[in-house]
Amino acid sequence: MSDLIKEFDDYRSRMNERLLSDDNKVIKRIFNLDTNAYMPGALDVKTKELLGLVASAVLRCDDCVKYHLKTSHEQGLTKAEIMEALSIATLVGGTIVIPHLRRAYEFWEELENLKID
Amino acid sequence: MSDLIKEFDDYRSRMNERLLSDDNKVIKRIFNLDTNAYMPGALDVKTKELLGLVASAVLRCDDCVKYHLKTSHEQGLTKAEIMEALSIATLVGGTIVIPHLRRAYEFWEELENLKID
Amino acid sequence: MSDLIKEFDDYRSRMNERLLSDDNKVIKRIFNLDTNAYMPGALDVKTKELLGLVASAVLRCDDCVKYHLKTSHEQGLTKAEIMEALSIATLVGGTIVIPHLRRAYEFWEELENLKID
Amino acid sequence: MSDLIKEFDDYRSRMNERLLSDDNKVIKRIFNLDTNAYMPGALDVKTKELLGLVASAVLRCDDCVKYHLKTSHEQGLTKAEIMEALSIATLVGGTIVIPHLRRAYEFWEELENLKID
Amino acid sequence: MSDLIKEFDDYRSRMNERLLSDDNKVIKRIFNLDTNAYMPGALDVKTKELLGLVASAVLRCDDCVKYHLKTSHEQGLTKAEIMEALSIATLVGGTIVIPHLRRAYEFWEELENLKID
Amino acid sequence: MSDLIKEFDDYRSRMNERLLSDDNKVIKRIFNLDTNAYMPGALDVKTKELLGLVASAVLRCDDCVKYHLKTSHEQGLTKAEIMEALSIATLVGGTIVIPHLRRAYEFWEELENLKID
Repeated sequence: MSDLIKEFDDYRSRMNERLLSDDNKVIKRIFNLDTNAYMPGALDVKTKELLGLVASAVLRCDDCVKYHLKTSHEQGLTKAEIMEALSIATLVGGTIVIPHLRRAYEFWEELENLKID
Repeated sequence: MSDLIKEFDDYRSRMNERLLSDDNKVIKRIFNLDTNAYMPGALDVKTKELLGLVASAVLRCDDCVKYHLKTSHEQGLTKAEIMEALSIATLVGGTIVIPHLRRAYEFWEELENLKID
Repeated sequence: MSDLIKEFDDYRSRMNERLLSDDNKVIKRIFNLDTNAYMPGALDVKTKELLGLVASAVLRCDDCVKYHLKTSHEQGLTKAEIMEALSIATLVGGTIVIPHLRRAYEFWEELENLKID
Repeated sequence: MSDLIKEFDDYRSRMNERLLSDDNKVIKRIFNLDTNAYMPGALDVKTKELLGLVASAVLRCDDCVKYHLKTSHEQGLTKAEIMEALSIATLVGGTIVIPHLRRAYEFWEELENLKID
Repeated sequence: MSDLIKEFDDYRSRMNERLLSDDNKVIKRIFNLDTNAYMPGALDVKTKELLGLVASAVLRCDDCVKYHLKTSHEQGLTKAEIMEALSIATLVGGTIVIPHLRRAYEFWEELENLKID
Repeated sequence: MSDLIKEFDDYRSRMNERLLSDDNKVIKRIFNLDTNAYMPGALDVKTKELLGLVASAVLRCDDCVKYHLKTSHEQGLTKAEIMEALSIATLVGGTIVIPHLRRAYEFWEELENLKID
């Protein structure tokens, strides 16, 4: 696994575990909801992942973008689909999204290399 | 047509026309890109409309939400699909999205009434 | 009750009811969490209302500000306490908060008049 | 004076007066700073007004945009200069700025009509 | 002192000093106001620190969050109080606040370790 | 060249190249527009760079701020002009801009050292 992906994964997992070991119920329920919201329903999982990706990109949250890129990759979304979603995010959110687009593109390319390995 | 929809449409059309009669090229090209970005490509039009809707909702732009609700309705998206997309937006963007969700829900219901007429 | 307060209350109640009659579970749970998060715990209700008020003010959500002003007023918070909280919001969030501060101040004054009635 | 401009001016003046009659020192000083920051210095007043306008537009604060349009108009800035500044705001801030651009354009046209009267 | 805390403190102190050695009066006054706004008044210092913390968290400013965590810790606020404040921030600001919550939690735990040392 | 500037430049150039080698037309056109928008027109290049800088600062995009500081420096803007623009950004955008102001100040000082070399 690439360093970029591994570093992101490790920190996220470790801190989520520590956060959830804390007894704050509101935070636990928000984490729980976050899992439920992306389950298949009227919309399929792929579409929901793209919605999460675009919401994260326009709000310029790099870690959220990385998380949805990773799950999108696991769901078999293609680079062309990801780039179209991110192009809408860049248009709606403006050129301030571009630095996040650069980091998203780098992360996606590492995810694709990973697949080949 | 309901007053809410008509008022939104009329103001938007009238002001877009005035804006585009101005000779600012950057603004004209952004409007042009806005049309192109939602054309079918690797993703279909329905998915793209949902992406535009969620981006607009988390950025809390009522007029942008209304616009994407209208085009989503024209594309045949169902209320359940719209509500799932908006539920992701509310989760990602937080409870400050709720007032916009109320106005979106009202607008969608008027769009559906319109269909019956 | 003043028109400003009544109009806000009526629209909010009517649309919340319509939203919750819809069968989207994620949205229902977010509404539910929103009630739980402001219950007394390690922090008392007054402090939590002020936190909700300041979060709403820096994110510039007028309806959220009005809601927290109303509950703050019901909890017996004073104008001086509200203004100190809003002054922190204006400093942290910048002068773009000022138009929202004007509307918040007007709403609070109507809430206080209401008390006298 | 047009109704749009008069309504904006009247509410803003009335509420600023009420806000400043309150004894919150932090808010008073922020208002004071707001006056000082746009005084001529290393940059002239016209440039500073354009900076205030673009900051307001990308942060999507209609009242702030109107205020800076009004002072920009008083300072003799031209429509072409205003539109170039707003085109940069729309590019940097994305298409969610467009509804604010429509309202800004309408307000500016009313300011220009006013000049003729 | 932990590396995380020390690195944050050192950079912040060094750059604030350089910024304030510059002769820009508006920036100096904003720094000055920032000190005054958190002084005891109608609200006590603990409440004001929590307000600053929540405002910083929903606006997703990691350095601002760290600063308020540090002062909150010095003021004797407990982990349970901090977590309730941050749970409100996460609910109001949405799941995009979660990556900042992870970093805030890590920083707070280091502050508590520090206390034991 | 300082490490801070070199690192920013290298990553930006490398990733822009990779992004533009992808065949997404919307993204290519946004990049293209980004070049056109800062060309001389009714406003000169210096003013436009300051507008881009302030828009980037209030939206708290460090990489965008660095980019506009670099071009502003190449255009011969002075430190006093940059600081006045950034003071307006800090006032309009609030104290959450301060961490970005620290990083902007550090970057500008490195740009000025570079000039002497």
